[in-house]
Order: sequence, then C-alpha cells, then structure tokens
Amino acid sequence: MSTKKSIDYKLYLVTDRNVLGNRDLIQSVEEAIQGGATVVQLREKNCSSLDFYNLAIKLKKVTSKYGVPLIINDRLDIALAVKADGLHIGQEDLPLTVVKTIVGDDMIIGVSANTLEEALLAEKQGADYVGIGAVYPTDTKLDADYLTLDDLRSIRKAISIPIVGIGGINEKNAVEVMGTNIEGVAIVSAILGKQDVKQAAQELLRKINN
Amino acid sequence: MSTKKSIDYKLYLVTDRNVLGNRDLIQSVEEAIQGGATVVQLREKNCSSLDFYNLAIKLKKVTSKYGVPLIINDRLDIALAVKADGLHIGQEDLPLTVVKTIVGDDMIIGVSANTLEEALLAEKQGADYVGIGAVYPTDTKLDADYLTLDDLRSIRKAISIPIVGIGGINEKNAVEVMGTNIEGVAIVSAILGKQDVKQAAQELLRKINN
Repeated sequence: MSTKKSIDYKLYLVTDRNVLGNRDLIQSVEEAIQGGATVVQLREKNCSSLDFYNLAIKLKKVTSKYGVPLIINDRLDIALAVKADGLHIGQEDLPLTVVKTIVGDDMIIGVSANTLEEALLAEKQGADYVGIGAVYPTDTKLDADYLTLDDLRSIRKAISIPIVGIGGINEKNAVEVMGTNIEGVAIVSAILGKQDVKQAAQELLRKINN
Repeated sequence: MSTKKSIDYKLYLVTDRNVLGNRDLIQSVEEAIQGGATVVQLREKNCSSLDFYNLAIKLKKVTSKYGVPLIINDRLDIALAVKADGLHIGQEDLPLTVVKTIVGDDMIIGVSANTLEEALLAEKQGADYVGIGAVYPTDTKLDADYLTLDDLRSIRKAISIPIVGIGGINEKNAVEVMGTNIEGVAIVSAILGKQDVKQAAQELLRKINN
C-alpha cells in the first residue's frame, strides 16, 4: 500500500464497464496502468455485492502488482473487504464524517465536490483529496453540473489537499485542466473507451507531463 | 443491543417499500413492532448509500426505543455506519468468511440459504442464524426457489443455529411453517402490505404463539 503522502494523482483512471463494450475490465485496466495510469478507481453501480467484491479482488491483484493505489467508489464494505487503498465518496454516498469514524486514517478518502463549499467542507472533515467536476460535459455521468476552469483555479487557491479534475476530460483538454495547477485528471472514456487503452494512457500522460 | 443468544426470531419483519405504497416506512415499522415484531431487517435495493444510511439511522432510533434488533440487508457499510445489531447476507452478497474477518463476533450475522448444503456451510462458517426459503411463492422476491416443509424439517435436524423461514409466509400458513420446529418466520407483505400493520403483526404473533 502506498502511503497517503506519496500518491501521484496525475492520471487517475475511473472504470466504467459501459465504455468497454465486450472488452475485459481487468485486462483493460492493466493496459491502462502499463500506459501510465497512476491511480485506479473501481466504480460499479449495477451489480451484486458479490460481483463487486470478486471484481475488486481481481483488480487488487493487478494494482498491487504495479504498486498503483486501488480506490473503491461509494462502497466502504467492498473497500474493507478487499483491503483497498482507498474509498471515493460522492455527495449521495455515506457522509465523510461517518466513514472517518469507521476507518480512521487507515484509508485514502476522496470526496466528490461540485462547489467551493463542498470542497472546503471535505478538506475540513479530513478528506485526503477531492474530485472536482464535472469540468466538461460527459456521457458517463449525465446528471453532473459543470464548473469552469476559473472555478477550478478558485478552489485550488482555497484548499490545500490534492485536487483531481473529473468529467469529460480527454486528450484534447487535459493540458488546460492541469494548467489550473491541480494534481491530476480523472479519466474514463478517453482511456477505457479507446481501442488501444495503453496507448491512450501513454498519450495522455505525455501531454500532461509536457 | 441485544446479546446474540437472547434474540427472539419469532416474528422477523423484513421491510420492502414496494408493498407500503405511500405509507411511511419508519412509522409502519414502529406499528409492526407495537404489534409484536421481534426483529427488523431493513432491506433496500434501489437507493443511494446516503438515502439508505439516513433511513437506517431513523429506523435505528425506533428499534432501539423498543429494544428490537435492527438487521441490515446486504450492506455491511450501512450496518457499520449506523451501528446496527446485525447484517443479513444472501448468496449474492459479500461472502460470510469475508464479513467475519471485518466484524468478528461483534454483529449478528444471518445468511440466506436455499439448500441444506448452504445452511450447513453457513453454520460452519459462523453464521448466527439462517434464513431458509422461499417456503411459498412470493411477489416480493420473484427469483426465489421453493422449498417444502419437509426440506425445512431436514435442515432443522441438520443444523443447530436458529432458523427463520422466509418467502410467502402469511397469516394462513405461518402456523404450519412454525410446526417444522424452526425459530421464526420472516414476513414482508403479510404485515407491511396490510392496511392495519399493527393488527396484522398482532394476529400473526397470536397464531404463532398458539
């Protein structure tokens, strides 16, 4: 397990089986890691707890092999069950304060924030990082509200914990998002929706690093 | 919190908002407890984690007031978050062995079993009770397989932990189910689907006690 301080949020992969078509999730994530993904978040919304657990166990083997942190979306029970490195919670998930009473500081806890107020509260309540967005319109999360790059800059100035931009970020706009001085970009379709997942990750990382 | 040994499984209420129509879940459960429900299982399949948590917090206040154990269906994270008395897991939920590594003996753990083999395994792995069924056809769980009363008797002879029969049990058949020498009946529609919830619970308890 990575220590919290050393985590590189630069290329934060979020899974979505809908964009994968018939391709295998585990194999695709491994290719994304080989291409440079620095964090993996497993996000599953429509499967049984057993299926989620089995998938997370398999994915943990891959992320552990490459030393990349595995973060589970929403489900603290799954995160505990597979000893994941972290949990990512949205505003419709368990409250951060409740999660902290259960896991203390043993797990990386990320929180989705759509506003400056939500970001400030998450930092105050002990989040390790925030996911801020949606930065651009996205097909993978239709109910999202949008923020501007100026909003990102304002939030960056207001809080000290790492910020990952999320929502519609791809090879065309990743550079301008990183230009707001945040720590990373969360990517779904622009990696897992591409035919060559490894190459897509490599290309994104190259652009971000330049 | 009740100690595990003292739990009375006799009239085990399982919630289902679909059978409630427009009536309030929390108030209906309180009426069921006033009518004699001895255990309450909160079962939610289609809401956010935050909604599930908020509902469970409210329900916990009611069950605590009456000293009735609150058991959460499927979601260990919700059970931990609200300090529920127990967790009930089905065969598509987190594996019992995994749950036990997280909660140890601090929580009542119930397991759904459809066969003698599943019941034996649950007992061996440390379940505190098993829910066996479905005993009769039911509208609230359409994918269930059915067991006969003879199956229930066989399982009763094979295991020592408490057994709760589940699936289509109502005021017409509860007595014959309890006649298989099991500890309790799990009821959904035959309490929460009735106009007078309290009276329905009272009537069921009266029949079971006779």
